Amino acid sequence: MKNRLTLLDDRSIFRAMEKKDTKAEIIAKGTEMISLYGYNATGIDMILKQVHVPKGSFYHYFNSKEDFGLAVIDRFAERYEQRLITFLNDSEVSPLNRIRNYLESGLARLTQNQCTKGCLIGNLGQELADQNERFRSRLDEIFQSWKDRFASCLREAQSVGELRQDQDPVVIAGFILSGWEGSILRAKVTKSPQPMHDFIETIFSTVLK
Amino acid sequence: MKNRLTLLDDRSIFRAMEKKDTKAEIIAKGTEMISLYGYNATGIDMILKQVHVPKGSFYHYFNSKEDFGLAVIDRFAERYEQRLITFLNDSEVSPLNRIRNYLESGLARLTQNQCTKGCLIGNLGQELADQNERFRSRLDEIFQSWKDRFASCLREAQSVGELRQDQDPVVIAGFILSGWEGSILRAKVTKSPQPMHDFIETIFSTVLK
Repeated sequence: MKNRLTLLDDRSIFRAMEKKDTKAEIIAKGTEMISLYGYNATGIDMILKQVHVPKGSFYHYFNSKEDFGLAVIDRFAERYEQRLITFLNDSEVSPLNRIRNYLESGLARLTQNQCTKGCLIGNLGQELADQNERFRSRLDEIFQSWKDRFASCLREAQSVGELRQDQDPVVIAGFILSGWEGSILRAKVTKSPQPMHDFIETIFSTVLK
Repeated sequence: MKNRLTLLDDRSIFRAMEKKDTKAEIIAKGTEMISLYGYNATGIDMILKQVHVPKGSFYHYFNSKEDFGLAVIDRFAERYEQRLITFLNDSEVSPLNRIRNYLESGLARLTQNQCTKGCLIGNLGQELADQNERFRSRLDEIFQSWKDRFASCLREAQSVGELRQDQDPVVIAGFILSGWEGSILRAKVTKSPQPMHDFIETIFSTVLK
C-alpha cells in the first residue's frame, strides 16, 4: 500500500512538473512570436503547432488569449527586472557607468538580433495601448518601474557628484526611457544599430554630464 | 451627336471624380482605423462597412491589402511633409524656435486626441519592420526624410549661433527623432502628455543650447 501511494505521489509530481514545463514552453514560444509579429498577428494555433501541444490543452493553462498575453508580459517583465538590477545596482561601477553599461548591453543584443524584435514592452505598448485597458495598465506599470530604477541610479549619480544637482532625476529618467525606446524603434526600422549608438553618445555628451 | 458626346464626357468626368473620392474616402477611414488598431488588426471589411463601399470595389482601387497600406502611408507622409515644411521652414522664427513650435504643436495634438493613436509611422514601424520589407523600406525613407529636415534646421541654428558648433546636426536630428517617437509612445501608454512635455523641456535645457 505504501509503495502504491509513493507511486501515485510520484506520478502527480511528474504531472505537475509536466504541466509547468508545457505552460512555460507555450509562454516562451509565445514571447518569441509576439516579439516578431505582434500580439494580434500571433495566432494561438501557430504557437501550439510549434511546441506540439494540442489546442484543447491551451485552455487548460490559460483562460483566454488575453490571459496568455498578460502571462507573456509578466514573464518578460520579471526577467527584465533582473537584468536592470544586475546593471543598475552594480556597486562596483559608478552610477552613470551603470547606465552606460546597461545601454551598451542593449545595443549589443539588438546588434546580435540583426535589429529585429526590439523591445517587447514598447512593441505591445504601441500596438495595444488604445485597444485593451488591461494590457495598457500593465505595460504602463512596467515602464514606470523601469523609470523608477533609472531615477534611483541618477539620484546616486547626483550624490557622488557625477550629475548636476539642477537636473530632476525623475524627468531625466523619463527622458532616457523615451529616447531609448525611440532609438530601438528606429534601429528596427532602419535595420542598423546606429540610432542606438548615437543615442548613447549624445546622452552622455549632453544630458548626463 | 455633339450633345451626346458632351453628355458622355460629363458622365466619365463624374465617374472619375466619384472614383477618386471613394478611393480617398477608403484611405482616410483606413488611416484612422490603422492609427487606432494597427495594420494587422484592421480588416478591409471593417473599413468598407464604415464608408458604405462594397467589397468588390476595394479591388477596383487597390491590388491588395498591402497596396492599400502603402497608399495610407504615402498619403500620411505627404501631409506630414507639408506640416514639417510649415514649421521648420518658417523664416519668421529662429531655427531652434521652429523646432520648439513643431514639438509643441505635436504635444497639443496628442493632448487633444486624449493621447490615442500616436504617430502612424512609428506605430507601423514597430508593427511591420520585421514582417514586410516593402513597408519597412518605405517607413525607413520617411523617417530619414524627417531626420534630414531636422538636420537642415539644426545647421541653420548653428549658422546663426543658436547651437554649439561641436554638435553634429545629423546625430542630433536622429536623437530628436528617437526621443520624440519614444515620448509619443510613452504618452500613449501612460495616457498623459507628460513624457512629451518633459522631452521638450529637457532637450532645450540640455542638448539644444
